[in-house]
Amino acid sequence: MFVIFQTLNSTQGVQNLALINLTPSIVLASASPRRSSILKQIGFNFEVMVSTHEEEFSNDIDLAKTNAKNKALEVSQRDNRLVLGCDTLVYLENQVLGKPKTKDHAMEILQKLNNKEHLVRTGVAFAQKGVLLSAKIAETRVFFRNNSPQELLDYVNSLEPMDKAGAYGIQGLGARLIQSICGCYYNVVGLPVALVLDMLKEVNHSYDFK
Amino acid sequence: MFVIFQTLNSTQGVQNLALINLTPSIVLASASPRRSSILKQIGFNFEVMVSTHEEEFSNDIDLAKTNAKNKALEVSQRDNRLVLGCDTLVYLENQVLGKPKTKDHAMEILQKLNNKEHLVRTGVAFAQKGVLLSAKIAETRVFFRNNSPQELLDYVNSLEPMDKAGAYGIQGLGARLIQSICGCYYNVVGLPVALVLDMLKEVNHSYDFK
Repeated sequence: MFVIFQTLNSTQGVQNLALINLTPSIVLASASPRRSSILKQIGFNFEVMVSTHEEEFSNDIDLAKTNAKNKALEVSQRDNRLVLGCDTLVYLENQVLGKPKTKDHAMEILQKLNNKEHLVRTGVAFAQKGVLLSAKIAETRVFFRNNSPQELLDYVNSLEPMDKAGAYGIQGLGARLIQSICGCYYNVVGLPVALVLDMLKEVNHSYDFK
Repeated sequence: MFVIFQTLNSTQGVQNLALINLTPSIVLASASPRRSSILKQIGFNFEVMVSTHEEEFSNDIDLAKTNAKNKALEVSQRDNRLVLGCDTLVYLENQVLGKPKTKDHAMEILQKLNNKEHLVRTGVAFAQKGVLLSAKIAETRVFFRNNSPQELLDYVNSLEPMDKAGAYGIQGLGARLIQSICGCYYNVVGLPVALVLDMLKEVNHSYDFK
């Protein structure tokens, strides 16, 4: 009996351990497959819970932070775990460029960005149980190549621009359009890895790597 | 008969067209899966033919260009198509850091790079029929975060550093180690997209997108 009892206990121990490892301690308040993909790439164990918060839209320089904060806070009222909220905005000369509504709109945005420098700002916020723990912004400067009208049109016709702020994805075909960047590359994709890791230290959350 | 003849002709036309599109006009003289992956991402149609040229190793600032040139030239003597050769080197204070030979060596390299700026240089060369058409270098500055010894050790234990110049891959788990970059992101991965596209224009090769 003693041996059986010990075996049971030991098995329960292993099961509990497995349960702990399988339950992510971080919730990502974003439906973006690109953000999920970056978190997976750096080995995070997390769960997605999409925020119902409606993103605001203005030219406010802190807008990305405000939206990130509101998303994280909303989800943190429905779940007890640490919640990560993000919002990525593309600014050209202090004006926010949204997601294109049509192919013509995408072409118009890309023509504005062409052969110039613009700014990508991602707001990152951590909240828990309805309390904001930290909210910051990462900035990356992006320099477009001098793309020909045909190069821009080929890109628009790939339809990749259609669901993307600023009408391009640096992680896809859009790589063709970019000369160089200054800052965090993953910020341009949608989740600034270095800032997220620094903020996790700040809010005393040990990394939750798989 | 006439209709049948036309149909046959039309079918042959489609087959010829398919053959033209399926035969890549560019050869990549590199075994690197990362370079192939970038070329696929930007829609290139290409074939891999690995160069037998032995890479040289010194602290020469033009070494990446020399190696790229030699790889492209060697393959271009075996195939009539346009050949792309590349070599990526990581420099810290004018010294080339190679690929780690052991886990201890990887840790040593990462400790050198930690909390500092270093330089990634990729040489790109195009050659055809044994003639060099163009050879250039792309430079990107990379800034490492102030990673803790445990963070570096966790990364070494992932074994990701083992086949990589400078002992890290920015496109993998290594993203955790990087604060920011200045230059072409894809240069750090191994193939500077902007430079390759500019050089294709220079050598009068129209893009070969799928």
